[in-house]
Amino acid sequence: MTITNNPPRPEPKALASALEALTARFGNRFITSQAVREQHGHTTTWLANQPPDGVVMAQETKDIQDVVRICAGNGVPVIAFGTGTSLEGQVNAPAGGICIDLRDMNKVLAVHAEDLDCVIEPGVTRKALNEHLRDQGLFFPIDPGADASLGGMASTRASGTNAVRYGTIRESVLALKVVRGDGEIITTGTRAKKSSAGYDLTHLFVGAEGTLGIISELTIRLRGIPEMIAAGACSFETVGGACQATILAIQTGIPVARIELLNAAQVKACNAYSKLTLAETPLLLLEFHGSEIEVAEQSKAFGEIAKDCGGGDFSWTTKPEDRTKLWQARHDAYWSVKALRPGAGVVATDICVPISRLADCVTETEEDLKRLNLLSPIVGHVGDGNFHCSLLCDVDDADEMARGEEFMHRLVERAQAMDGTCTGEHGIGQGKQKYLKAELGPEALDAMRALKKALDPQNIFNPGKIVPQA
Amino acid sequence: MTITNNPPRPEPKALASALEALTARFGNRFITSQAVREQHGHTTTWLANQPPDGVVMAQETKDIQDVVRICAGNGVPVIAFGTGTSLEGQVNAPAGGICIDLRDMNKVLAVHAEDLDCVIEPGVTRKALNEHLRDQGLFFPIDPGADASLGGMASTRASGTNAVRYGTIRESVLALKVVRGDGEIITTGTRAKKSSAGYDLTHLFVGAEGTLGIISELTIRLRGIPEMIAAGACSFETVGGACQATILAIQTGIPVARIELLNAAQVKACNAYSKLTLAETPLLLLEFHGSEIEVAEQSKAFGEIAKDCGGGDFSWTTKPEDRTKLWQARHDAYWSVKALRPGAGVVATDICVPISRLADCVTETEEDLKRLNLLSPIVGHVGDGNFHCSLLCDVDDADEMARGEEFMHRLVERAQAMDGTCTGEHGIGQGKQKYLKAELGPEALDAMRALKKALDPQNIFNPGKIVPQA
Repeated sequence: MTITNNPPRPEPKALASALEALTARFGNRFITSQAVREQHGHTTTWLANQPPDGVVMAQETKDIQDVVRICAGNGVPVIAFGTGTSLEGQVNAPAGGICIDLRDMNKVLAVHAEDLDCVIEPGVTRKALNEHLRDQGLFFPIDPGADASLGGMASTRASGTNAVRYGTIRESVLALKVVRGDGEIITTGTRAKKSSAGYDLTHLFVGAEGTLGIISELTIRLRGIPEMIAAGACSFETVGGACQATILAIQTGIPVARIELLNAAQVKACNAYSKLTLAETPLLLLEFHGSEIEVAEQSKAFGEIAKDCGGGDFSWTTKPEDRTKLWQARHDAYWSVKALRPGAGVVATDICVPISRLADCVTETEEDLKRLNLLSPIVGHVGDGNFHCSLLCDVDDADEMARGEEFMHRLVERAQAMDGTCTGEHGIGQGKQKYLKAELGPEALDAMRALKKALDPQNIFNPGKIVPQA
Repeated sequence: MTITNNPPRPEPKALASALEALTARFGNRFITSQAVREQHGHTTTWLANQPPDGVVMAQETKDIQDVVRICAGNGVPVIAFGTGTSLEGQVNAPAGGICIDLRDMNKVLAVHAEDLDCVIEPGVTRKALNEHLRDQGLFFPIDPGADASLGGMASTRASGTNAVRYGTIRESVLALKVVRGDGEIITTGTRAKKSSAGYDLTHLFVGAEGTLGIISELTIRLRGIPEMIAAGACSFETVGGACQATILAIQTGIPVARIELLNAAQVKACNAYSKLTLAETPLLLLEFHGSEIEVAEQSKAFGEIAKDCGGGDFSWTTKPEDRTKLWQARHDAYWSVKALRPGAGVVATDICVPISRLADCVTETEEDLKRLNLLSPIVGHVGDGNFHCSLLCDVDDADEMARGEEFMHRLVERAQAMDGTCTGEHGIGQGKQKYLKAELGPEALDAMRALKKALDPQNIFNPGKIVPQA
C-alpha cells in the first residue's frame, strides 16, 4: 500500500549533529545498524518499512528527555517504540529520525492495592504486569492479544477481548506523564478515580500515537481477580443469530467479560489447525467473571437467550483446563489463519460498527470476500461491534494485492456507512489516514491539525501519522 | 470570593453592533432585561453574579451557529447555558457577552435500543431523558443530583451517585457535534462503541465548560433497566470503618451501583429535617442492580464485609417503597443542611482522593471544621473517593466568610497532598482556577492554554473560565 504522508527529512547537517550528540550521550545504547533500524520500522502489515536513522535504548525518563531535547534542537523526528506490535505503521519513520525504544523502561513503580491502581513505566507489557500483580489478587484486564507495552497500548487506544466488560485502555488510564518538545514533563492527572479539573489532557494523549509527546509514566486502574471464571461456547446457524444473542445479553445486563465471534471460515481454520471438531458455522465464545453463584446465573441466562436466537447447546464450565480447551480456538486464531496458506502475508485490519449493524456488516463482508475471490477469516469482539479481518495475500501477486486493497477500502466504507468507525482499536497510523475525513468531516481534521500544531509546533513527534496532509 | 480572571469586555461599538444583529435575527427570542440577564449569570455559590449582555433562547442548531457567527464577527463572548446548576461560576460572564440558553433544544432525536445509545439535543435534562426512555426498558445512569441538562453535564464532566458502577458522563458520551468559532460544526465521533480513529476530540470537549465551542448534539450510551434493585443502609462507628468496607466491597468485585457516605453531622441534619431516628454516626447507603439472585448475593456479601469492618446491622430490601424510605435521607441532604441554619448561604464544594486516603481526608476535614468553628455536613460518593462539603455561611459575616475561605483552601490542599484532585465532578469554572497549577504543574497549564488558543484563537467561548491567566 502506498504511503502518501511523507514529511520532509531533516537537514543533513542537523541530522548529523543530532547523531553525534546522541552518540556522545548514549554510547552503545544508541544504535544505528541497518538491522536494528529496520526492526524498529517494522509494521506487521503491507506498509513499506521506513526505518529511523538510529535507535536509543532508553532506561529512564531522563533519557527520553535528553533524546527529545537533542532532536528538537536539530529539527529531527522522535518516534516512540514499545513492542512494535502496532498494525497501521505507527512506528514507521517516513521522515527518518530517532526511535526511542522503551522496552527497558519496564518497572512497576508502585501498586496501590486498596485504590486498585498502579504506576508504571511505559515499557511494562501487559503480561509482565499481570505476572507482577497476581500475588496481590489484582489484574489488568485489557487484552489486545499481543503482549504489547502499556505505553504503546495507551498510545494506540488499544482494547481487545475484555473491553465489553472492563472498557478499553481509555477507561483504564488515570494519569500520564508526557515528555513535551522542550524536554519538560506534562503531568495530566492525579490518582483520583475521577476529576473535572480542566481539559482532559490524559485522554488527548491516549490514542495520539506518540504524535503529541512521549509517554514516560502511566497511572492505570486495576481490578480484583474474580472469584470465579466461567467459559462457554455456542454455535449458531447464522451470524445474525449470534449477534442477536449478543445484543439481548447486553441489553438484559448480563455482565459478560468476553464475547467473541468466530465466523464459519475462522472455525474451519481452527478445526484444521488445532484438530478440533467444532461445527463449521458461526461460533460464540464467552467468559463470565464473578462469584460462583453469579457466573452460574449469568451462564444460565445466556444459555436461554442463545436458545431463543437459534443457537445450539450452550455448554459452560469453570474448570481451568476445560476453559483453556474451549478458548483454544480463539487463541490459535492467528496461527490457524497463517496455516491456511503458508508463505502468504496476513494483513490484519479492524473496523467497529453499532452492534445492531454488526450482522449485516459481517455478512456483507463475507459476500465481498467471495466476490473478490479472497480469503479472510473473521473474528470479532462482538459485544463492542468490533471485528477483525485477517486477509491472506500473496504479496508478489499484483492482481491479488489490488483486490485486497479494494476489499479493505470497501470494508471501511461499509463500516462508515453504518455509522461506524474505520478502526475500533488498531489506530490510524499511516494505513487509515485516508479514511478520517469521510468519517468525521473536514472540521474534525482541522481541529486535529490545530491540536497537533499547538502541542508539537515543530512537528517532531512521530510526523506523518494520524492526521493526513492538508 | 474574589474573581481574579476577568478578561476585557468587547469594544462598545462592536458589542452594540452584535446586539443589533441579534435583535434583527432573533426578535423576542433575544432578551436583554436585567432580571433575565442576572438569572443567566447565576452561580449558586458565593461568586459574584456577572450577567451577560443578552440572552438568546436557541431552538435549533442553526440558532447556535448564527449567534456564534455574529459574536465572533464582533469579538463578543458566547456562553452556553443549560439549567444553570453548575457550582463554580461556569455560566458567569466576566467579560459580558451573549448567553445561549439551550433549554428549548430539548429533543430526543433518536433512540437506538439495540445499540444502547441515543442522540439528543443539549438541553435535554436527565430526568426528561429517563422519562422518555422508560417505556423501552432503558435508562441513563448518570445522576448528579440536580436535574441538569446533558449538554451541561458533558461540559462540566459531571457524575454523581451511580458513577462507581456506570462511570461518569465521560464514559457515557460517544460523540458530539460542536459549533466552532466560525459557526461550522465539528463532528467528534460515530455511534461505534469504541474507536481509535485519531485524537479523542469527544473527550476534549467533555469537561471543557464551553470554552472550546458549543455542544449542539450528543450521542450517549444508555443501559438496560436492571431486573431488580436492592437498597440497604449500614451505620459505622467511624468514617474509617465505612471507608474500609467500601474498599473491600470494590476490591472483591461487588458491583455496587451506589455507595454513599453521610458523616455524623449529615445524619444528624437528616434526622432533624426528615424526622428519622438514624444512629448519629457515619452511615453508608447502598444500591445494587442485577437479577434477583445477583442483588441478593451482592447484598449478602456486603453485609459480611460491613460486619468485619465494625458496621452495624445491614438491612436491605428490594421493595420500591422501602428503598425510597431508606434513601430519603440522602435525597433530602441538601434541604436538611439548609434547614440547619435558615437564611445562611450554602456553599457546595467537592474534592476527590484515592479511596485509601478517604477516611483520613474526611476525618481531617471534620477536625478542621471544628477548629474553624464552621458547620458543613459531608456526603460522599465514597466508592470513587469523592466527597462534598455543604458549608453554611452567613454571607454578611466577614469573619465567618474568611474562615470559610480558609476552610475551602485547606480542603483542596489536603486533597492534593493526598494525590487527589481539587474537583471530582463540579469543574473548575471560576472558583477553582487558582488550584490547577498546584495540582498538575505549569506544563499542564501551558498545554491547556495552547489547546484553548488552538481551538478558540479569538477567546470568545466562555472566556475567563478553567485556565487561569498566565
